[in-house]
Amino acid sequence: MTEHDLTARARRVLAECRLLAGMTEEPGGITRRFLTLPVRDVHAHLSARMKSLGMAVRVDAIGNLRGLWHPPNAGMRRLQIGSHIDTVPNAGAFDGVLGVVLALELVETALEKIALVQNAREREPMALEVIAFSEEEGVRYGAPFLGSRAFAGSFDPRLLALEDADGVRMDAAVRAFGLDPEAIDEAALDPKEVLGFFEIHIEQGPVLEAEDLQLAVVEGIVGQSRLAFRFTGQANHAGTTPMHLRHDALAAAAEWIVAVESIAGTEDGLAATVGKLDVQPNAANVVPGAVELSLDVRHMSNLTRTHWVRSLINAAQSAAHKRGVEVTWSENLDQPAVEMDKRLTAELAEALQACGLPAKRMPSGAGHDAMMMAARVPAAMLFLRSPGGISHHPDESVREEDVEAALRVGAKFLERLAAFVG
Amino acid sequence: MTEHDLTARARRVLAECRLLAGMTEEPGGITRRFLTLPVRDVHAHLSARMKSLGMAVRVDAIGNLRGLWHPPNAGMRRLQIGSHIDTVPNAGAFDGVLGVVLALELVETALEKIALVQNAREREPMALEVIAFSEEEGVRYGAPFLGSRAFAGSFDPRLLALEDADGVRMDAAVRAFGLDPEAIDEAALDPKEVLGFFEIHIEQGPVLEAEDLQLAVVEGIVGQSRLAFRFTGQANHAGTTPMHLRHDALAAAAEWIVAVESIAGTEDGLAATVGKLDVQPNAANVVPGAVELSLDVRHMSNLTRTHWVRSLINAAQSAAHKRGVEVTWSENLDQPAVEMDKRLTAELAEALQACGLPAKRMPSGAGHDAMMMAARVPAAMLFLRSPGGISHHPDESVREEDVEAALRVGAKFLERLAAFVG
Repeated sequence: MTEHDLTARARRVLAECRLLAGMTEEPGGITRRFLTLPVRDVHAHLSARMKSLGMAVRVDAIGNLRGLWHPPNAGMRRLQIGSHIDTVPNAGAFDGVLGVVLALELVETALEKIALVQNAREREPMALEVIAFSEEEGVRYGAPFLGSRAFAGSFDPRLLALEDADGVRMDAAVRAFGLDPEAIDEAALDPKEVLGFFEIHIEQGPVLEAEDLQLAVVEGIVGQSRLAFRFTGQANHAGTTPMHLRHDALAAAAEWIVAVESIAGTEDGLAATVGKLDVQPNAANVVPGAVELSLDVRHMSNLTRTHWVRSLINAAQSAAHKRGVEVTWSENLDQPAVEMDKRLTAELAEALQACGLPAKRMPSGAGHDAMMMAARVPAAMLFLRSPGGISHHPDESVREEDVEAALRVGAKFLERLAAFVG
Repeated sequence: MTEHDLTARARRVLAECRLLAGMTEEPGGITRRFLTLPVRDVHAHLSARMKSLGMAVRVDAIGNLRGLWHPPNAGMRRLQIGSHIDTVPNAGAFDGVLGVVLALELVETALEKIALVQNAREREPMALEVIAFSEEEGVRYGAPFLGSRAFAGSFDPRLLALEDADGVRMDAAVRAFGLDPEAIDEAALDPKEVLGFFEIHIEQGPVLEAEDLQLAVVEGIVGQSRLAFRFTGQANHAGTTPMHLRHDALAAAAEWIVAVESIAGTEDGLAATVGKLDVQPNAANVVPGAVELSLDVRHMSNLTRTHWVRSLINAAQSAAHKRGVEVTWSENLDQPAVEMDKRLTAELAEALQACGLPAKRMPSGAGHDAMMMAARVPAAMLFLRSPGGISHHPDESVREEDVEAALRVGAKFLERLAAFVG
């Protein structure tokens, strides 16, 4: 592949993403929830491309679009490559869909390479399956990863009874799309047929930009704790209650928020966030009587995460008790970290280095389809730099040079895997 | 007055307050806004009592009920005693109205004393005017002190154009009550005719209870600054944004809230409160992008207050800047402190001591009618202990023994003033 080819391919990838962004529930913005009408348009567009590449196309029962490229001399086991095509409301043009479009570009690259070397039989080409997952964001039914759960065999049929904001049950939505909710089980992968899963995705964070890097190998998806806290003091008149007679729930919560920030800064890779806070009665002339707030803690190590969660609970108790304020909490989520496959990840790191790029490794702080797939098959993931760290926003973008780098690394990764398989 | 009389009087005061509490816009709770129907019932009840005491009764153009007791041998100048009869929504039974009922009880006490000594001519009795201010809380029109503003000659006629929640203009409400809004000016006091104004009120705070005291002489009403702050950082994904790359508006605001609490604790009599706080976007998995919050600062010294306001602004800038967060603020209120009259206040303190009580002096952290009256005539104010510091709440209460003490001190205060006038 010449540099000229690469630039042209990268531009086509960006153009494709922008074209698909026009397939939206809301003209003027990008919103494409699970199995809504614009998903049909996306399927039609991607299917046509898949077919033009000689791929066998199908849509499974949960709505994942799958294109299989199986050259005659390829082995039985295929590598799956893909990401999701649903979006958050008022999204950017690259979250998810970029990984699908890049996957198709990698198939086309592989196809052209075979054409060049078709008589050489230097190696067995490897079968590739491109997947456009139907649902990852969890917007329509409040449950994320619907597409990759079906692949992983972890789709709970009780999910089908969930209703969207318009009261449409999930099973009805599946049927309305022309699919059979009874057959979702059949989407589950047979690990014997699959070499692994490879996802390319934008970072959706500021790390690569801050380190002036284009790409990173994802080591895994961090584990996550989600807790709800309530500080209960006493609401009092702001004018008539001297400072020493107050039980100010907000002052206690504030001391704790500062402690959360400070404690999280002491542990490498630990992220702790108080994102939601509500004050009662929330009036300028009333000392706050109660504060409810959220705590989100993430780390690649489950032990480290749970250690710091305990420490942050202690800090909340300390901040509360010194003010005669009560604090209660409940844990709403304790989701373990998911590691990417060590062997595939090592190959991906080698591919970066072979392309002259630093083999930056980092965890993903957000969930991805690769997290669900990793439960069933070896998974690897490549991050592209997110300009400004911006995602889930119309300003979300990706640089053409980074798309070029991802194409180069992706092709090298497939080449290495094919050599390994062959 | 015997102890037995006192106890009976105190019980009658409490019974009267409870009876008046039944005159409410909302059965089951106490809500009595400016010139609403239950105000008529209160006027009828209090007028009857006033008349039975030989008082001349009138309602001025802003709805203040005024009863003048002018014994034949009294001088021209009268002492005004009173408080307000409007309430906050879902109020307690004593805020305001207790001061009116106590004033009537003091008139009755004075009347009985004259009867006992009527031939002795030991001193000139002093004329007393009891005022039931029509409005202090500012609930119906968002503007407080309507009654006492009229007395003070500071009633701005533009207020008459304000509309209540039902779209009723204030001038229409005044007319509907049978009063003439054009005549509000005529309610303004002629200071030559008035010796002073005396208000008895519950503390509405926890100070007296904490110090195990029944009563206090109010030195003045604290000045108040009200500011609005906005911390603007950057909303980011809680999972993908490492701690060192965040611009967390809530963490900055939290550090500042702790500083506000801590700084206020260093200055005697300073109260600083962050009572209202709103986070954007207020989602558990998003680093807060912006926080809006209120600051309320009160102190008896205007210099001290404005000094600390500047210091708290500096603290906000410091907390913001270390996180790459912007902070802006605006001052919405800068209300100077109002001192009570030194001579009347000294007489009141002497009255406490003459009754064997400590002459505790304290500022009032909340506004009162006495604050408006002080602009026109010498004013003094007596606080009664608020059990639990509770006010503006159905649980608001007052102890019978404290009402007894207030009656004893009030009678002594009037006696001292009469001697002084005579």
